[in-house]
Amino acid sequence: MIAVDWGTSSFRAFRVRDGQVLARRETPHGILHVGSDEFAPTLRRVVGPWLEAGETQILMAGMVGSRQGWLEVPYLPCPAGVGELAAALTAVPFEGAAVRIVPGLRSVDANGVPEVMRGEETQIAALLPTLDLAIACLPGSHSKWVEIAEERITGLTTHMTGEAFAALRQHTILARTMAEGETHTDAFRRGVVRSAEQGGLLHHLFGVRTQALFGELPETEAASYLSGLLVGHEVVAMAPVGKVHLIGTPALCSLYALAISYYGAEPVVAPADAAALGLIEIAERAKWT
Amino acid sequence: MIAVDWGTSSFRAFRVRDGQVLARRETPHGILHVGSDEFAPTLRRVVGPWLEAGETQILMAGMVGSRQGWLEVPYLPCPAGVGELAAALTAVPFEGAAVRIVPGLRSVDANGVPEVMRGEETQIAALLPTLDLAIACLPGSHSKWVEIAEERITGLTTHMTGEAFAALRQHTILARTMAEGETHTDAFRRGVVRSAEQGGLLHHLFGVRTQALFGELPETEAASYLSGLLVGHEVVAMAPVGKVHLIGTPALCSLYALAISYYGAEPVVAPADAAALGLIEIAERAKWT
Repeated sequence: MIAVDWGTSSFRAFRVRDGQVLARRETPHGILHVGSDEFAPTLRRVVGPWLEAGETQILMAGMVGSRQGWLEVPYLPCPAGVGELAAALTAVPFEGAAVRIVPGLRSVDANGVPEVMRGEETQIAALLPTLDLAIACLPGSHSKWVEIAEERITGLTTHMTGEAFAALRQHTILARTMAEGETHTDAFRRGVVRSAEQGGLLHHLFGVRTQALFGELPETEAASYLSGLLVGHEVVAMAPVGKVHLIGTPALCSLYALAISYYGAEPVVAPADAAALGLIEIAERAKWT
Repeated sequence: MIAVDWGTSSFRAFRVRDGQVLARRETPHGILHVGSDEFAPTLRRVVGPWLEAGETQILMAGMVGSRQGWLEVPYLPCPAGVGELAAALTAVPFEGAAVRIVPGLRSVDANGVPEVMRGEETQIAALLPTLDLAIACLPGSHSKWVEIAEERITGLTTHMTGEAFAALRQHTILARTMAEGETHTDAFRRGVVRSAEQGGLLHHLFGVRTQALFGELPETEAASYLSGLLVGHEVVAMAPVGKVHLIGTPALCSLYALAISYYGAEPVVAPADAAALGLIEIAERAKWT
């Protein structure tokens, strides 16, 4: 089988056999960079060699199933587990292989405001059968915190942390005191510590500026400090207790682990290739491979 | 006397006599739009007719006294009142009139992070002699909350609310669901109410997106809702009690008054022309007019 994690800004394909990833390809052809009639050709170009080698099934997840994607697949309501996801695959016409898309999930937060995800439900799917009461965090532009009970996703909370970071980093006065560079872990940690102090996020943002003005925050550390500030505010708002399963890139997971530990919870980083493992789990439950 | 409020993006000049504003001029020549050797010519162009009519003294406040301004005037430490400001005026060479700049103020917040202001100390100066224990709020790109005791400014807290609004409004996915238009007061109020709910600001930001996606927030109201959300988070972080003196444009003061009332404090909108009145107060104390 071929598993495809097709998101907003990236395209990741995996050739899998017997639950193992045999080969992988990654391209920058996220749905934002693909015209509406270019989805099938893009897919064929990337996974064509695997089709020629005999693969006949392609299971996809992510924003490819959104209104801006190949085909809009309706959100499933929470609670939903691997069984519900596997029962709701949507077929897409494609010559030479059977193609299906995994639906996203929708919910409402504690105050009735809508919540949605597409792709993250799949990244977490391989973990679900092992979890009873649990929390998972999937960091990113729109970080997701997922509540799990009895192997099913019961609710989610999104934070616009990554995207807010980019907008503040590039399009405010803070940009003037920030140099490009590697992540500075100690500066990130200081930002997390600051997030626990009084005054609120909008006040703490101005402190990035004043500390730079008064020589207390070097240009090479300011972006990492800002990142720690935002991630810290995300984590403290969730007030996590006990284990938090982290799913994402190793670099981002390690920063979130730092913030989650600071606030007294226990980060557990999930295995890599979460999307591929989740697609395998869903395909097996759908009796599709 | 001529009073000048010369900020980052605007230039406001007032001709005053006997504590009254006789005439005013406003131009977009904020310091960001004026070359380093253009300050004197810009001033002369705008207030030249008043000099020809016999004025000989010009008192200025705002970012004109910053490193990016005409001449850098060191910050005074808090606590400081009209007396301290009047005693620390800095002269600028200018042919045909005596020109002075009012210093800005500096402080540290409850956790030792530096705080600064330039211009707001002057906008509040006319009120100071009437206040004992009080709080003032000066809304804007960088909103200032000022603590006052015994007629002096004892501390301040800045929130990057206006600038964060602009960056989020224009440079994130939220821009896609927002139309230009007038402020929608009821949507602003709903944003303020949302700020009191659980989840934190970064989560509430994503709710702007999902409510738009699910048809719960019209495009013409989304920007006002976002503004209410941010202003609400600013006000709740300050937890104001009792009277809050509001100094700023009537439109912004009226929105902040709504948020301050929602959180149980009592907004009191200060008279217009606060900068001119403050410059008059400082000039009188300096025995300069």
